[in-house]
Amino acid sequence: MYEPTLLQRRYRVMGNEAPLFYDQPLTFVKGEGVWLTAEDGRRYLDVYNNVPCVGHCHPGIVAAMQRQAAQLNIHTRYLNEQVVAYAERMTALHDDPLDCLMFTCTGSEANELALRLARFVTGNTGVIVSDYNYHGNTRSLAELATAMATSEAFSAQARAVPIPCLYRAPAGTLAQQLEDQYIAHLQAAIDSLKAQGTPVAALLIDTLFANESLPRVPAGFVARAAELVRAAGGVLIADEVQSGFARTGEHLWGYQAQGVVPDIVTLGKPMGNGFPLAGVVTSREWVERFGHASMYFNTFGGSPVAAAVGMAVLDAIEDEQLQANALNVGRYLQERLLALAERHELIGDVRGKGLFYAVELVQDRQRQVAASAEARQVVNRLRDQGILISKIGPHDNILKIRPPLVFAQAHADLFVDTLDRVLTTL
Amino acid sequence: MYEPTLLQRRYRVMGNEAPLFYDQPLTFVKGEGVWLTAEDGRRYLDVYNNVPCVGHCHPGIVAAMQRQAAQLNIHTRYLNEQVVAYAERMTALHDDPLDCLMFTCTGSEANELALRLARFVTGNTGVIVSDYNYHGNTRSLAELATAMATSEAFSAQARAVPIPCLYRAPAGTLAQQLEDQYIAHLQAAIDSLKAQGTPVAALLIDTLFANESLPRVPAGFVARAAELVRAAGGVLIADEVQSGFARTGEHLWGYQAQGVVPDIVTLGKPMGNGFPLAGVVTSREWVERFGHASMYFNTFGGSPVAAAVGMAVLDAIEDEQLQANALNVGRYLQERLLALAERHELIGDVRGKGLFYAVELVQDRQRQVAASAEARQVVNRLRDQGILISKIGPHDNILKIRPPLVFAQAHADLFVDTLDRVLTTL
Repeated sequence: MYEPTLLQRRYRVMGNEAPLFYDQPLTFVKGEGVWLTAEDGRRYLDVYNNVPCVGHCHPGIVAAMQRQAAQLNIHTRYLNEQVVAYAERMTALHDDPLDCLMFTCTGSEANELALRLARFVTGNTGVIVSDYNYHGNTRSLAELATAMATSEAFSAQARAVPIPCLYRAPAGTLAQQLEDQYIAHLQAAIDSLKAQGTPVAALLIDTLFANESLPRVPAGFVARAAELVRAAGGVLIADEVQSGFARTGEHLWGYQAQGVVPDIVTLGKPMGNGFPLAGVVTSREWVERFGHASMYFNTFGGSPVAAAVGMAVLDAIEDEQLQANALNVGRYLQERLLALAERHELIGDVRGKGLFYAVELVQDRQRQVAASAEARQVVNRLRDQGILISKIGPHDNILKIRPPLVFAQAHADLFVDTLDRVLTTL
Repeated sequence: MYEPTLLQRRYRVMGNEAPLFYDQPLTFVKGEGVWLTAEDGRRYLDVYNNVPCVGHCHPGIVAAMQRQAAQLNIHTRYLNEQVVAYAERMTALHDDPLDCLMFTCTGSEANELALRLARFVTGNTGVIVSDYNYHGNTRSLAELATAMATSEAFSAQARAVPIPCLYRAPAGTLAQQLEDQYIAHLQAAIDSLKAQGTPVAALLIDTLFANESLPRVPAGFVARAAELVRAAGGVLIADEVQSGFARTGEHLWGYQAQGVVPDIVTLGKPMGNGFPLAGVVTSREWVERFGHASMYFNTFGGSPVAAAVGMAVLDAIEDEQLQANALNVGRYLQERLLALAERHELIGDVRGKGLFYAVELVQDRQRQVAASAEARQVVNRLRDQGILISKIGPHDNILKIRPPLVFAQAHADLFVDTLDRVLTTL
């Protein structure tokens, strides 16, 4: 009797285009800290997933979810202490004038709402994004995306400006020159939007530029970009879905490293450690003006369960000092990756900070030709060796290293030692 | 020392425009079955909330969530048995060719995705909605909404067609005439979209027309509308966010009562009993064609926790025979409401089915002038008497009665008796 495999069953009811990792996808049955256990009992070290930021199945998060789900789970049209307390705690973690939180369930919803807000408060419609961006799966965001295929054309009211990277710049290029080039591109985008009658409403960026492969950006260029956009009547939206919640070690939020206070911040992925919790932080004035013009309600957004989970995540980050861990283990990991680069010609660049690194593989260091096939091999062989990472970049040649924040030095050693072996036997 | 109230604290960090029920909002601390307990210990009978469809804090749902959250919570780029099993079970509940499920987290995301799908597979861009519709909080959906204020203008690529209601039709109007009128309006909308070069991609409707105040529609008109839209190259999207999951008692899905199989079905609210779980059901062919053209990934959508919760909700609906309960208690509730209408002139109409009723309040039955102030009074006085309902309609004069599906005959009695008293002393 023919028994379809799980993959075949999945194809049947979810289609064969729903994204899957690996040439031979993995089936997991258990998660714990930085470990995922497959159906055959084998444990895999998770060096990729940022959503379970305080670790897979963190007992404190699970308990908070369970306790609140058994007690009360309702929407925000009734008052609730936990929900308000979470909004107070979250807004206190941001600088003025970011003092108000609008709850959503996903980062896509948060970016979608941020764009609605920006368009409303500025009265403008143009949007500037970085080239090779992805901010979510709604139509408005798909129309802005350049990092992947979408069924929608790129929006006529948008411009995509490439983010400078010192690694890819011609030898001898100064950071200042690169910054000036970006600013010139940005100014051209602003002018072009204005010329066609759709002035800029927002510059929407991930301040770490994660989908853009964590480029080595000139320090301070984001602040200069924000000034330019504001002068043209637009606002800065910082998408903290990947860069936020202590990921960088240095700061709680990615925008802080850029020395800029955004007008609107969007939160997602790690916010609920896997529970669908996301949101928009901006000024109360804007939230109320927008809310007056537009009834915004999110049925599941800001439920007491979402708030309890969000609170437990912040507790874990603080109690377990995960920002300091990201900084310290991150530094150690970076050192080890840099040492690896000295012995493997294939590694063209190691960049990033905290617990987020891009290791760019190139066919030779001079010509910097993307080693895409090799990157694919490395990712699949690491999988065979029990390590989970992924790859990014227009040429899929950049290893994406972004473990849960409970990643320890021993995990970094296991990962780098295995990567070393894989690169040696490639 | 001044201590701000919870409401004042909420205004500060969530703004004063975030929707709240009642002139004096309620603060809840506990939910159980059809009951919500306020901070002062008082219990309120919930005759409004459809999200906790199997009852507030249902132990089976809470246990399933807790068990899975403690075990594994990961995205769909890895394989997982529970997730596939849920997709199999959900698609089996729909007729051919609705055999594939795309997971999202919210009904807004589901409708957003459904529109992206419809535009892609038809190659068209026009959308027809009903007048007084609301399908979600993204920009694309806000541009279609006519049931509430939005900061966006109504889309130039959309048309809103009023839904016929026998109650509001001139005396002597036949159902057939009303249907013909709607079909003529729909044809005009189709023609007008085509004439401006944006032919219809989709007719997007809630087949119960919940936001449109559950109008008394001519039987079978939706099937005729679907034919017309398909002939023009468009598809039918049935938004089952309010009408689905046994709400009507007669059927599991609202579209079944209309005798039509939609091309795309969107699911939300009750699907996870409060856990953010939603989705789109359509044909595998379309899912794969769309997925090939557009990378669709939803980070939290279709996690094992979402699947476990969704499975527990379906279990509860089946094991506790909640569809039969909606039918039986619904019939009883309807009879009692109709009896009430005989004694209270204020009640102009009672309509609906299963556990979803609209009780329209009018200043006099002849002229059918909306009794908006009275509806507001009724809702607030019911609150004072420990009963939760809400109101709908362009004039906010229609009582919205939509309890969890575990609503029993005794609850119906308590509700109707209290409503009787409130109407008597108005």
